[in-house]
Parts: sequence; structure tokens; C-alpha cells
Amino acid sequence: MQRLKLTIAYVGSRFHGWQIQATPGKPHPRTVQQVLEKAAAHILGRAVHVHGAGRTDSGVHADAQCAHMDVPEEKANFNWRRALNSLLPDDVSVLAVEPAPPGFHAQHSAVKKLYTYRLWLPREYVLPAWRPFVWTCGPVDLAAMEAAACHMTGMHDFASFQNQGTDVQTTVRTVYGIRSCSEPGVPQELLVAWQFEADGFLKQMVRNLMGLLVAVGRGKISADRVAYVLESRNRAHAGVTAPAHGLTLTRVSY
Amino acid sequence: MQRLKLTIAYVGSRFHGWQIQATPGKPHPRTVQQVLEKAAAHILGRAVHVHGAGRTDSGVHADAQCAHMDVPEEKANFNWRRALNSLLPDDVSVLAVEPAPPGFHAQHSAVKKLYTYRLWLPREYVLPAWRPFVWTCGPVDLAAMEAAACHMTGMHDFASFQNQGTDVQTTVRTVYGIRSCSEPGVPQELLVAWQFEADGFLKQMVRNLMGLLVAVGRGKISADRVAYVLESRNRAHAGVTAPAHGLTLTRVSY
Repeated sequence: MQRLKLTIAYVGSRFHGWQIQATPGKPHPRTVQQVLEKAAAHILGRAVHVHGAGRTDSGVHADAQCAHMDVPEEKANFNWRRALNSLLPDDVSVLAVEPAPPGFHAQHSAVKKLYTYRLWLPREYVLPAWRPFVWTCGPVDLAAMEAAACHMTGMHDFASFQNQGTDVQTTVRTVYGIRSCSEPGVPQELLVAWQFEADGFLKQMVRNLMGLLVAVGRGKISADRVAYVLESRNRAHAGVTAPAHGLTLTRVSY
Repeated sequence: MQRLKLTIAYVGSRFHGWQIQATPGKPHPRTVQQVLEKAAAHILGRAVHVHGAGRTDSGVHADAQCAHMDVPEEKANFNWRRALNSLLPDDVSVLAVEPAPPGFHAQHSAVKKLYTYRLWLPREYVLPAWRPFVWTCGPVDLAAMEAAACHMTGMHDFASFQNQGTDVQTTVRTVYGIRSCSEPGVPQELLVAWQFEADGFLKQMVRNLMGLLVAVGRGKISADRVAYVLESRNRAHAGVTAPAHGLTLTRVSY
């Protein structure tokens, strides 16, 4: 068998997230993993498992999700990208397929992930092309948010920012950086893109960090409060979860 | 009465173009003008006409379409932008509402229009977020297209590039410029944006010019042939009409 590494982009709006969900007696909700496995199985003539670098929530987008799948040697040099894209729906596309290096595992070999969360600032209008990709949060104090973000970077126990639903051995993660930047071609008074890079993220951790940053940006809590929220290791202290559709998985590093 | 100037953005995918279309006994197809007039009428409590700078075809997008409407003096200083946007669907947004200068007419006062047509170049994949806004035409020879575009600029009789369906007094138009440029944040080997600026455009003229340019870019006809097509004043010589969804109305100048 040959392991292949896939790089995949999708618009998450009409997907129930990455992961296949099976409930006995009910039809499968539409997920990215499901449409990929279906297309790959069609090509191979048998079922195949496509293993992602991580789950993305329902509604979350990806510019470059990664995954691996194992195929017979005689299918290793097949034009997988073209074949998969000819079968996939319009809202998902395979950007690259390459032979994986020895021992590669899309999830376990990942050393860093970069997520982008987009905030739309004007209260009175939204550019319709951006609407599926932004949280229309209204005006925020960027300087206060940047001060709060400083408290979040580094190695911390992020238990306060983890939603229920997965078993993890530890809630300690290292956040390498959180920074605000402009979207190319869009004035910064309209849209601010927040980038979060870490060695890994807990369930809904980016959305919970963003939710707290926006609370700071709205003046509802102080930037210094973030340190207390982290130390409390209590989900109830961190506040709202930012909406899924503002979030995009931008890069997985190996 | 006070005349207001509206600036409007929309994603054209789910609209049957700008213009209200009435067929007796049939439901109106969903158009941008129709949803705007419906929202404005809801606010005013009576019917109102929203007059656009020009029609856009079914599926064509707009970053800044312009229009005017006349409202009673007592409603002139009302927050029209906020009120309209609270009633409009997600795929259309009013960016600005301002008092129109004396004698202003959205269609007749327009002196220039700028359209952008986006081409997606890789054959093997499309970024899903861009798919609704590009023609996936495959690789093209940009230098040849630029040479062909030179023949199109200036004052010409564009009868060869006009589709049937509207009465115009003259098919002479002045094209100020046609140029290819990068989309901010997207590598030019993936996407090329073509901008067309003129004092006005005939029905489907941009899409017909783009269709011919892509035929040149694919090596199907020579750049010099464009001069002949123009001179022939014969629609049959100009070839295919580029798909509507690659086209965006970028700016109307007054």
C-alpha cells in the first residue's frame, strides 16, 4: 500500500463539519470526510478511509485541510487530484495529492495548525460575498483585543476554552501566536482577520478564544481578565463561543 | 420629493439579474430590483421605483451597482441604509445612501462603468470560495489576450459584440481600457481579473469581448482577427459569450 497526503479546501456552509457521523437508522449528515471517501471509493471500487488532520466543526471552512489515505501500489501514480475533483461537489476541492513520507499520519504528524477567524466591523452593512465567512460582530477595540491576545499566547492549560464532547489526555496547548491582520483587498475598517497558530487546539478552542477577545473588544471585560479566565480552568468563565462560519482552517504544518 | 442615490452590492448567483420581469399569470422571478423595491415599499408604505444605472444579466454580481429612488422630503434624512439592510436578503446589501445632486439620474448621468471578469486558470482544481465568481476556462496565453485587447480599446462600433434583445440608438461605444490584473491575495497563476472600462456597454458586450479574448488566449484565433471581427459588425463572427457568473459590475462613475 502507498499512503497519499491530500490537501483539501472547502466552503463549510453546507457541510456538517469534517467528520462522518453515523447514527443507526438515520441518514448520514453531509460531511467533508463522507464526500471524499465516497469519491475515493468510487475510483478504487472498494471502501477507503480518509483520515483528516483534525475535525472541523459544522460550518467551519478550510483553505488547506490535510488528510491521508492508503491506496494499492498500482494506484499510487494515478492522477488522484483530477479524478477526485471530477467527482466532488462544487464546495470542496482537492488542491494537491502527493506520496506521504514514511510514517506520515495526517493527525499525529501535524506539528502546528493555523486558523483564521474573520470579523466584519461595520454595523450597517455586510458585503454579501463576505457574509458566509465572517462574524458580523460590529465595531471592536483592536488595541484592547491585542493586549488580551498576549495573555493567551504561550503554553497554558486551556481547559477554560474547551467545549465538552471529546476525550483528550491533556488540555495543555502551546499557542505560538495570535495576531490581527488585514484581508488582501479589503479595507481594515471593514474586516479584520485574526490568525491563531498553535501546536494543537481543543474542541472549539479557537471559537472560544475569539468569543472572549470580542467581549474584550466590546469593552464588556478587561484585557487583564483573560489571565484569570485561563487560570480558573473553568469553561463558564470564558463566555460565548464565536459562530462557526467565521472560522477557516488555513494551514496544517508537518 | 428628494432623490436618493443608492450604492448596492450583490452576489448574483441566486438572482435573475437586476431588472424586474413581469410575465402575466406567472410569479416574478427573483431580481435585485424587485427585492429592493419591496424593502423600500415596506418602509414607505407605498410602491416606489428603484432605477438602476443599468441592468445586469442573470447571475452577474455587483460590488457597487448604483440606483436612484425618489422619497418624500420628510423621509430624506431617514437612515435608509440601516432600514433597507434590515429587510434585504443576505445576498444583497446597500453600501451607501446619499442625497442625489440636482438633476441626477442613475442611468443617464452615468459617464463610465467598470466591469471585472475573473478567469480561473488551473484545469485540475478550483478554490471552492472562488467558484461562484470565476469562469474555469483553463490555461490561456495572457500576452496574446493583451494584444487582442488593444484592438478593442477606443471608440468603435461594437455591433459584433451585442446580443439581441434591447433597442439602442447606436452601437458605438468608447472603451477606455481593458487590462488584466491580479486579485489581491490570490496568485496570478490561479486567477486573472480582467477589467473593462467604457462610457457604456451594449447587452452582454463584456461577456462577448471576454469570450473572444479567451478564444485568442486558447490559440483558437489570432489577436489580429479581433480587428476584423469589430469591422464586420456581425455578431456571428465574435464567437461565444463568456458565462455570466464570472462577471462583476465593479464601479459606476458619475
